[in-house]
Amino acid sequence: MLDNLFRPGSVAVIGASREAGKVGHEILKNLLDSNYPGKIYPVNPKADEILGIKVHESISNIPEKIDLAVIVVPAQFTPAVIEECGKKGINCAIIISAGFKEAGSVGAKLEQEVIQLSKKYKISVLGPNCLGVIDTESKLNASFAPKMPLTGNIAFFSQSGALGTAMLDWAIEGNIGLSRFISLGNKMDISESELLIALADHPDTKVILGYIEGVKDGRKFMEAALYATRRKPVIIVKSGNTAAGARAASSHTGTLAGSENAFKAAFKQCGVIRAITIESLFDYALVLAHQPLSGGNRLTIITNAGGPGIIAADACEKSELTMASLDQKTTEILRNSLPPTAAIYNPVDVLGDAKADRYLSAFQAVKDDKNTDSVLVLLTPQAMTEADLTAKAIIDTFSGGKKPVAASFIGGGSVKKGIEVLRGNNIPDYPNPERAIAALEAASKYYNWINETEHKEEPKIPINRDKITEIFARSRQRNVETIIGSDAMNILAEYGFVVPKTGFAETGREAAILAESIGFPVVIKISSPDILHKTDVGGVKLGLRNSAEVERAFEEVVASAHRFMPSALITGVTVDQMVPQGKEVILGMAKDQDFGPMLMFGLGGIYVEVLKDVAFRIAPITRREAASMISEIRAYQLLRGVRGEEPSDIQSIIDSLLKMSQMVIDFPEIIEMDINPLMVMTSGKGAVAIDSRISID
Amino acid sequence: MLDNLFRPGSVAVIGASREAGKVGHEILKNLLDSNYPGKIYPVNPKADEILGIKVHESISNIPEKIDLAVIVVPAQFTPAVIEECGKKGINCAIIISAGFKEAGSVGAKLEQEVIQLSKKYKISVLGPNCLGVIDTESKLNASFAPKMPLTGNIAFFSQSGALGTAMLDWAIEGNIGLSRFISLGNKMDISESELLIALADHPDTKVILGYIEGVKDGRKFMEAALYATRRKPVIIVKSGNTAAGARAASSHTGTLAGSENAFKAAFKQCGVIRAITIESLFDYALVLAHQPLSGGNRLTIITNAGGPGIIAADACEKSELTMASLDQKTTEILRNSLPPTAAIYNPVDVLGDAKADRYLSAFQAVKDDKNTDSVLVLLTPQAMTEADLTAKAIIDTFSGGKKPVAASFIGGGSVKKGIEVLRGNNIPDYPNPERAIAALEAASKYYNWINETEHKEEPKIPINRDKITEIFARSRQRNVETIIGSDAMNILAEYGFVVPKTGFAETGREAAILAESIGFPVVIKISSPDILHKTDVGGVKLGLRNSAEVERAFEEVVASAHRFMPSALITGVTVDQMVPQGKEVILGMAKDQDFGPMLMFGLGGIYVEVLKDVAFRIAPITRREAASMISEIRAYQLLRGVRGEEPSDIQSIIDSLLKMSQMVIDFPEIIEMDINPLMVMTSGKGAVAIDSRISID
Repeated sequence: MLDNLFRPGSVAVIGASREAGKVGHEILKNLLDSNYPGKIYPVNPKADEILGIKVHESISNIPEKIDLAVIVVPAQFTPAVIEECGKKGINCAIIISAGFKEAGSVGAKLEQEVIQLSKKYKISVLGPNCLGVIDTESKLNASFAPKMPLTGNIAFFSQSGALGTAMLDWAIEGNIGLSRFISLGNKMDISESELLIALADHPDTKVILGYIEGVKDGRKFMEAALYATRRKPVIIVKSGNTAAGARAASSHTGTLAGSENAFKAAFKQCGVIRAITIESLFDYALVLAHQPLSGGNRLTIITNAGGPGIIAADACEKSELTMASLDQKTTEILRNSLPPTAAIYNPVDVLGDAKADRYLSAFQAVKDDKNTDSVLVLLTPQAMTEADLTAKAIIDTFSGGKKPVAASFIGGGSVKKGIEVLRGNNIPDYPNPERAIAALEAASKYYNWINETEHKEEPKIPINRDKITEIFARSRQRNVETIIGSDAMNILAEYGFVVPKTGFAETGREAAILAESIGFPVVIKISSPDILHKTDVGGVKLGLRNSAEVERAFEEVVASAHRFMPSALITGVTVDQMVPQGKEVILGMAKDQDFGPMLMFGLGGIYVEVLKDVAFRIAPITRREAASMISEIRAYQLLRGVRGEEPSDIQSIIDSLLKMSQMVIDFPEIIEMDINPLMVMTSGKGAVAIDSRISID
Repeated sequence: MLDNLFRPGSVAVIGASREAGKVGHEILKNLLDSNYPGKIYPVNPKADEILGIKVHESISNIPEKIDLAVIVVPAQFTPAVIEECGKKGINCAIIISAGFKEAGSVGAKLEQEVIQLSKKYKISVLGPNCLGVIDTESKLNASFAPKMPLTGNIAFFSQSGALGTAMLDWAIEGNIGLSRFISLGNKMDISESELLIALADHPDTKVILGYIEGVKDGRKFMEAALYATRRKPVIIVKSGNTAAGARAASSHTGTLAGSENAFKAAFKQCGVIRAITIESLFDYALVLAHQPLSGGNRLTIITNAGGPGIIAADACEKSELTMASLDQKTTEILRNSLPPTAAIYNPVDVLGDAKADRYLSAFQAVKDDKNTDSVLVLLTPQAMTEADLTAKAIIDTFSGGKKPVAASFIGGGSVKKGIEVLRGNNIPDYPNPERAIAALEAASKYYNWINETEHKEEPKIPINRDKITEIFARSRQRNVETIIGSDAMNILAEYGFVVPKTGFAETGREAAILAESIGFPVVIKISSPDILHKTDVGGVKLGLRNSAEVERAFEEVVASAHRFMPSALITGVTVDQMVPQGKEVILGMAKDQDFGPMLMFGLGGIYVEVLKDVAFRIAPITRREAASMISEIRAYQLLRGVRGEEPSDIQSIIDSLLKMSQMVIDFPEIIEMDINPLMVMTSGKGAVAIDSRISID
């Protein structure tokens, strides 16, 4: 995919300039300087030759086929250029030029025009307002980044061109190789989604890095990310906390949602590793690009000093990694090969006077340890320390092996050479143990992701669409935006939610029969269009346990109501099931501007309102995701049962979340909803939806 | 303080060696190489001259006065050497030698011996098992660190010698100047506490940095840290999660305490800034050492690219800093001096083609902005960017001014020269915006710390010590480790806690009079040594609202008890106050191994048991600290009143915490206690201690 963007046979530079320093000149120069093997056609009606190459007057004047057009003409000329490209049969273009959407309404209109034209001629467009593209393997530098990075297996795309330049500059300085660099610009056509798929399919790319400020299409992004993360690690920095939409939220879920939660949920559901800083983006990449994938999360630390060993062990304990318990065989070997005062348990301390040979014997012991999944080597420069030879020992022992290894050679001039040796041999080195641990943790997270069971779609519950559509239609007719009461309950019931049973009876006998079908205990309430406060007229009887009690209660409430309000029209009584007390939880959904329906789960009352202890996922969700929403909240233990309480029916919450997930997908007109509370009984006893609000557009 | 450690007039190196590479040689060499102006006396019975200097056979052979002895003889000879130093009148020594406590029981015994001798001769000792000391101003390198760092105003002490070496190496490489470096070693005598005071009083030190794995004496540390932080910033990395003591906890507080919480509390109470990594230790130091202290937390960001600006703004929002709202005057100046498409609000975006002059005009506008307390300059290397000239513009504008400024020039080779210019002029530069923000945040935290009201001791509540001592004595006699029930209540009452009123009555009339003095409603309960289950015999009456009800209830419970158990001896009734329902909170104390009594506060029930939503402080606490314990918990809002509830009486919780704080200081024999629950009424209505457990040793 996007082959012509990354390895075109021929490139036209439209707007090539004779003047050094101008973008149209620099891009042509970069293409030539990078030893790009394809044909290059500068286009400029006012020049004959630039940098020793013949210039064409227009695209149509070029006799050969063109695979990629790099457009650097002023914004207002781009529509005409795109049209010409289309006519020439070019199917891929990079618009470097700025002056579009980012520059105001005139530019936005221009961008729309270009979008229409490129659609018409089926041209894939990167940009506008971007830096261009680099593919180190095909020696393509179709960008105005001044220098080409080394060849490598890390791809990096950036929504910020300037940040892209800065990171390229940084990568070149640090001898970090890249496979591809892509500046996204305004994402008129090609966005992060298309790139994720293209890079997932790119054999020379082992790790995909990205910096984004938003996504063009949330759903498409999730699909693309899922496709990519099943093939290789994807690490993304997402900045920019988009302000919540202007519409006032009509539900708890709506109040608590928000773009940041949506991105968190989406990344989690797609296995995208989120880096918090640009620094950590590359930190993580180095382990994932250059080391084998760990088979687990058990880390062994080898150090020549206690302090950094403790720092690393602390960081390990705070991470998802655990400190490996070395196999007895390993500790025996260590005991025999290290000095008596060395620490032979994890962290293994080879002592301050260790030369490379002593490190080496520790490496060899740990290399084959069956309880160790990954290794971190720490080195501080002491009197006897041999930083470079120790680096070589790491390479000799671990390179080509099955265990990922990272190093932290701490210091300045004394460890510089050792670090160079490590870097030159693809052993990631970090200035401090914490950053090394964070990188190894990211790798372990990716291992866990690809080893999770395949995501399966949940079987759908059969429902009667017409019934629900009818309720929506009726509500719209009455200008009801938020459906509540029995209408909401009927919708839930259609999706298999258990709702409190209820009915209407005109006589005591009818009430008793109804109560028997509902199940005891029940409540009866007087039904009268004239009576607002039923309790005040003695019109309510709670906790009725059998038919006789119901019949007697019927007589009593009717008599009492007559006595208090002789003129009231009494139509009968409602008979309601009394739902036993359980744990109150809230299920909800709010629409995110990028990702659409986002589900929420939390415990009822203050847990949601005050502690904001809730979990989010983008719908639809899998059974596994539903379960993880529940276990993710801090108050999870309350559902598992504390203080000798029986556990709550967590399975029924999972089922309820799956039902709601299907509902909001089945009916996109639902824009927000709460089921509050869902009364959850003890394990095996189910859950009852007590009340619900469903907002439609 | 410790003047002879840092600027001795004369130094003896005991165990000086002729052999290059040996510690006893390297230290002498370092002393000579650093151009130390004082006299140096190598001591070694087997040498005449080392490195061109006359060697003395023994310390007593040196005719002149010696201020500092640096001891590098094997561990077993140190007691004799210390004795000799003592006799010579030396009052300060550094024991470099290893082989003491860290090497096992023989070494530990040796260390004890040295401690006794140094006490006897009043010698301050640094070490043993340490790297030594560096004072750049006095040109003293009494360490075996191979290179001397540049002169500067940052002092660094380290409990890990190797980490010390590594950081010195790193500081030299990065041209970061230090005032003093101290390797703590085994902290036999001089510990972090003595150093904090010495460095607080050291005029050449502006910022104190430390790496510790524990403290020698928690209380002393807190006093010293408080002394130091009132004078200059103290930033410490504390590693090593000491395992909780082996003793099983007998209270909620005991279960939730732990060394990590104690250190967190202690650092907070002393204004010590905790750095999470060694990297951040120096990151923070650069702003605090080289920039003026900010007058507030309002940050303005100036950038030449949107992406990094967004990243920085995100980081700012997540920190304790806030994005400044630029004054209208400032935005006017910016509007007039920047291109029309530049962003004139915060972050100020001078655009990608900005040269140094455009940055400069933005700097000048922001420099005088009255809503800006600190400034962050971001730079990415783009085609027109002038990194070094922009660095100069920063220096020209902000150096010597009142606003702290930091920079993040992002990239590699293209920004290198700019970064060098910044560093050379004491403008802190960071490889990414997040680290710059974290450093500015640390500076803002320190500003807040020194601007808080002075810590005042709380006035003491007068108590009757004898009464409490008597309860303790009685409990010990009965082998009661944990005091509960009325004994515990009486202790609390002595400290002014409101406890439920209670009394005993033999007749109905007596009960009624008692009830009147207690206040209605009351509960009466039959009192009989023979009746275990009072309710079963009709022996309890709740909610009695007046004397008549009490007298009637007396007759009823006595009659009923007689009826059910005719043979039971009935002595009368207890009359208990019925405490109204309020918010249940827990107050507690557990002893920390380092810091002694540590207070805990949390909401009752699941908030403590499941959510572990609690706050800790080391006792004694101030009123301000008590208040911050309460506001720190996540559930704080519940006390302030949610869903239209009246706020709880937070003042009475503060008072209760202060009472408990005094209690555990007054009676060190209290090793653990819970007040659970303290029933807190609505604002102004006080709080009642319902139940308590007090464990004594």
